[in-house]
Amino acid sequence: MREAKESRRFAGRVNGLRPSAVREMLKATESPRITSFAGGLPAADLFPVADLAAICQTILADDATGALQYTVTEGFLPLRQWVCRHVEATGGIRCAPEEVLITTGSQQALDLAARTFLDPGDVVVAQDPSYVGALQVFAAYETRTVGVSSDSEGMCPDALRHVVLNSKEPPKLLYLVTNFQNPTGLTTSARRRRELADIAAEFDVLVLEDDPYGRLRYSGADLSPLVTVAERSNCIYLGTSSKILAPGLRVAWMVVPDTTTFSKLVAAKQTADLHTAGFTQRIVARYCDSSEGFERHLSALVAAYRQRRDTMHAAMNACFPEECNWSLPDGGLFFWVKIPQGLDATTLLKTAIAKDVAFVPGAAFCVSTAISNAMRLNFSNASPTRIEEGIARLGTVLKEALYEINRR
Amino acid sequence: MREAKESRRFAGRVNGLRPSAVREMLKATESPRITSFAGGLPAADLFPVADLAAICQTILADDATGALQYTVTEGFLPLRQWVCRHVEATGGIRCAPEEVLITTGSQQALDLAARTFLDPGDVVVAQDPSYVGALQVFAAYETRTVGVSSDSEGMCPDALRHVVLNSKEPPKLLYLVTNFQNPTGLTTSARRRRELADIAAEFDVLVLEDDPYGRLRYSGADLSPLVTVAERSNCIYLGTSSKILAPGLRVAWMVVPDTTTFSKLVAAKQTADLHTAGFTQRIVARYCDSSEGFERHLSALVAAYRQRRDTMHAAMNACFPEECNWSLPDGGLFFWVKIPQGLDATTLLKTAIAKDVAFVPGAAFCVSTAISNAMRLNFSNASPTRIEEGIARLGTVLKEALYEINRR
Repeated sequence: MREAKESRRFAGRVNGLRPSAVREMLKATESPRITSFAGGLPAADLFPVADLAAICQTILADDATGALQYTVTEGFLPLRQWVCRHVEATGGIRCAPEEVLITTGSQQALDLAARTFLDPGDVVVAQDPSYVGALQVFAAYETRTVGVSSDSEGMCPDALRHVVLNSKEPPKLLYLVTNFQNPTGLTTSARRRRELADIAAEFDVLVLEDDPYGRLRYSGADLSPLVTVAERSNCIYLGTSSKILAPGLRVAWMVVPDTTTFSKLVAAKQTADLHTAGFTQRIVARYCDSSEGFERHLSALVAAYRQRRDTMHAAMNACFPEECNWSLPDGGLFFWVKIPQGLDATTLLKTAIAKDVAFVPGAAFCVSTAISNAMRLNFSNASPTRIEEGIARLGTVLKEALYEINRR
Repeated sequence: MREAKESRRFAGRVNGLRPSAVREMLKATESPRITSFAGGLPAADLFPVADLAAICQTILADDATGALQYTVTEGFLPLRQWVCRHVEATGGIRCAPEEVLITTGSQQALDLAARTFLDPGDVVVAQDPSYVGALQVFAAYETRTVGVSSDSEGMCPDALRHVVLNSKEPPKLLYLVTNFQNPTGLTTSARRRRELADIAAEFDVLVLEDDPYGRLRYSGADLSPLVTVAERSNCIYLGTSSKILAPGLRVAWMVVPDTTTFSKLVAAKQTADLHTAGFTQRIVARYCDSSEGFERHLSALVAAYRQRRDTMHAAMNACFPEECNWSLPDGGLFFWVKIPQGLDATTLLKTAIAKDVAFVPGAAFCVSTAISNAMRLNFSNASPTRIEEGIARLGTVLKEALYEINRR
């Protein structure tokens, strides 16, 4: 097929990532020899396998046709009803099942929002750095994503206002991960949520709040999502079962208070894949609705991840050069570690892989500002022992690199 | 949110279908009182539920992490390997697992092809009438779909050549359902496949051959897909587990011989939903790979559907006015019945629903030529007894309508 005949989309991209040496390097980290802090995977050893096996039997015994036949695009009603109870109990979001659209993972929710609201050339505003999967979606729709800087409370309102006022056209979408952001681990403060929501309302920018990690809180108190403090019709809130149950089921949800917007998203979803698998929707619904089992699982998960976070924090304190710094995230899966100016995390990754330890260089997540001296470390997917060993090795890599620099 | 800020896509569309009275009417047919020949559903009573339940246990016992964790975008390797053996055994397609991309149903395959190859304004060529779900995808990407007429051997080469030569820009995509087409039930002859493939090659048009029904053959012999007779790199072949196992699993496949095209589709898929559920991919792989169980199931399915087809054919011969005509499809799920000129199938549907029987008016599938006097009847989703009763009632509706016309 002639290259010239292909769509402009994906023109410069292969395998979804901007072509990069980092991706090639990280391929090597799939070897079991390597302690990888690179991915964002939940801990497979904590999947509630026996409970899921029992649930599969129950579903195929009493609701096989529901699980296996074509079904409605909007999603399985009892799952949508559970999502309503869940987001109200955990975030104070009051919504009806008619406002909940089930998606094939949150990635699809991002894609549906983009295809429904964005035209080529549109401006999207996002935290800088941001989740790569979202940046890829915005790029695929040929939009221009502008990164806005954050401080310890989250995205800076003044910086956001500056971007909005200085865009040739007003931005269409504000993309935010408010809890334990990927990659920085930062949580947007309550005050900041209100300020950002106010700016979005003032300039009529759609807020897309992505909350994959909200239930994985290890310290501090839950904060209200923007949809509860902002003009509801201007917000979409995303949640998922991937981090609290199992990503391999591909079941997530969008809360969409505006009915016209909801209908458009359903139309987009119908075009995209008709509906999310009825079987996996039922697995999530039955598991999460068996409140006792689910809440017990979630407590165990939070306890295990808290221990891994604390182990990594302590190991970094013990092994990293004092010129490195990071904050303790209140939840989620990641540490964001700033390494001394002059060190390049991408160069460092090469050395680290040679010592059987891996991470993602911060540069991979950058939107408008290049950051070469940061790394994202995942703590959910390695045992405490491996975390200690891996961080010790990474500390050595860092110290050797610093020694080389200081020697020059 | 202001209407003006939304994307141009989906501007005039809600719920995926062009707004239509038909859709509203068909909503009524969900009642169990109604015998519906309207949908395209497989028979739920033939799902191999016990086997699937056993397979779920096995998967969660020996491969729980594989089933529940994030996985690669391309799909589960053993499933891709099975697809290779399957398409070779059934259609003579020789391909490697590296040419097989697993998708979240064939609907996603259509969507990925469109987003990868089509820009707004591009021309797509399709059989007229065609599958509505594909037409919706092409419309969502703001392309112009041109319908080409068929005779009993399939799409007419002269008509296709005429469209290609008279398009302002050469068409980018030729969309074909070659086996037991939805809605007409027509199969493209071997000679015609070669002729269409030659035209596509001559004008460098990508062939998207959608084959959801190929294994559901009740008479005649299998024919080779276009990918085996055409320039391979110019073809994409789609298959699915929806009609031979269960649509609620949402597992389908694309065979994409060209490696550059394959990479672009993987990038699009990664943006769309990261990957198809690892759990349902494994269910399909294990079931279909247990050749004995799968082949036994398929034989039973073919036998049952053949009986339903023959029952409907005999009932129509007995009960429909002689002015109606149709051909016996060699496979698939549908009869396409032409009713006398002067009768309007959409008007008739209203009367039919009042008599507790439903179908889809042919107009719903039209691309470039309006057809008001045809109806699509599904025979897979009702028992032979209900088929006989429903066709008898529909015969009465038709005869009464003809009587009214002749009286005028």
